[in-house]
Amino acid sequence: MRQSIMTARASPFPSAEDKDRERQMKREAVMRTAASMFCERGYTATQMSDVASELGVTKPTIYYYFKNKEDVLVACFEAGFEMIQSTLNREGEAAKTGAERLHDVLVAYSEILTQDYGKCTARISTADLSEESRERVSQQKRRFDDQVRSLFRDAVEDGSIPPCDIKIATFTVLSSLNGIGRWYKPDGDLSPEQVAQAVVDQLFKGIGWPRHA
Amino acid sequence: MRQSIMTARASPFPSAEDKDRERQMKREAVMRTAASMFCERGYTATQMSDVASELGVTKPTIYYYFKNKEDVLVACFEAGFEMIQSTLNREGEAAKTGAERLHDVLVAYSEILTQDYGKCTARISTADLSEESRERVSQQKRRFDDQVRSLFRDAVEDGSIPPCDIKIATFTVLSSLNGIGRWYKPDGDLSPEQVAQAVVDQLFKGIGWPRHA
Repeated sequence: MRQSIMTARASPFPSAEDKDRERQMKREAVMRTAASMFCERGYTATQMSDVASELGVTKPTIYYYFKNKEDVLVACFEAGFEMIQSTLNREGEAAKTGAERLHDVLVAYSEILTQDYGKCTARISTADLSEESRERVSQQKRRFDDQVRSLFRDAVEDGSIPPCDIKIATFTVLSSLNGIGRWYKPDGDLSPEQVAQAVVDQLFKGIGWPRHA
Repeated sequence: MRQSIMTARASPFPSAEDKDRERQMKREAVMRTAASMFCERGYTATQMSDVASELGVTKPTIYYYFKNKEDVLVACFEAGFEMIQSTLNREGEAAKTGAERLHDVLVAYSEILTQDYGKCTARISTADLSEESRERVSQQKRRFDDQVRSLFRDAVEDGSIPPCDIKIATFTVLSSLNGIGRWYKPDGDLSPEQVAQAVVDQLFKGIGWPRHA
């Protein structure tokens, strides 16, 4: 066994592991390039041949990694949702009040929305997808929506935020943050962290009409 | 003169005015049908032939009123923006505090976003439009953005809302309301008025973290 590992290392031929890693890297490169183009030009206007030429490869090379354009988009969506889920797991662990957890998840979510995979989830309409893909993506969106509702519920329950209509509050907040995914440009005055912090702050403090004081 | 009017009325042939009115009505019918389809199926998936068959006419009939699909979409956008502008004019007139004017414009805007032309402005990406059309639509969006910033500024100046970062506040609020245009379904629990009121209320009162109290 040890012998065979050593042989594999010394060999000029890549191991199955090496090949797998390389395949992953190439797949990821296609996704990154496509995500950036989808966000900039729109999904419909982006051709797989554009993605290929940006990467300096032929179109059949791309089709070795993905069935079609929709397959790439769904992979980008899923990469975005994975980032969001790992944020939820991270921010959920520490001993914080409900309000703090909610706050930190919203800030982290906003930052993800300034990056290409996150932008895809907010910017690209699922209307152009097949029913199957649309359902997969919608499920992930609903899942996150439910998780944020839970965060609101916990924060109201431990008294760290005042009572509110959970459904309306979640809708209001997530719509607002999705706007970051739609409009944030990296060449603006504010860094991703600053935008995330400022918008979430605004949502926490509210416009502040005296009638509601 | 009187004679000629009477003749026109008695005549079985439509007057120039009648023809113009009829043309407007037909143009409007095309827009309404298209707007509803754009919102439901997406812009790309909607074909002009679908619009025609929904109206029980042939495709060339549609092309008598509009150059192409983009032309219809731009007309829908503009109808939406017109509704928004007339709201601003209406809400701006009365003697109210800055906060009240801001509140009422935001509620009226939200209600417009539950209707098809309004939905189009929030739902359909301009990425698929020609550069010229995109610029026209963007100008209108920027105009409204500027107007809402002014409303915020006035409300801060007359002391009816606390000071805030005008740009961030406008972005946060409009992104949130645009979410209504994207997600509102008429078959939900809440009427357009109720959704508008609830989301705007949430934006005014904020999540209300004690840290910001």
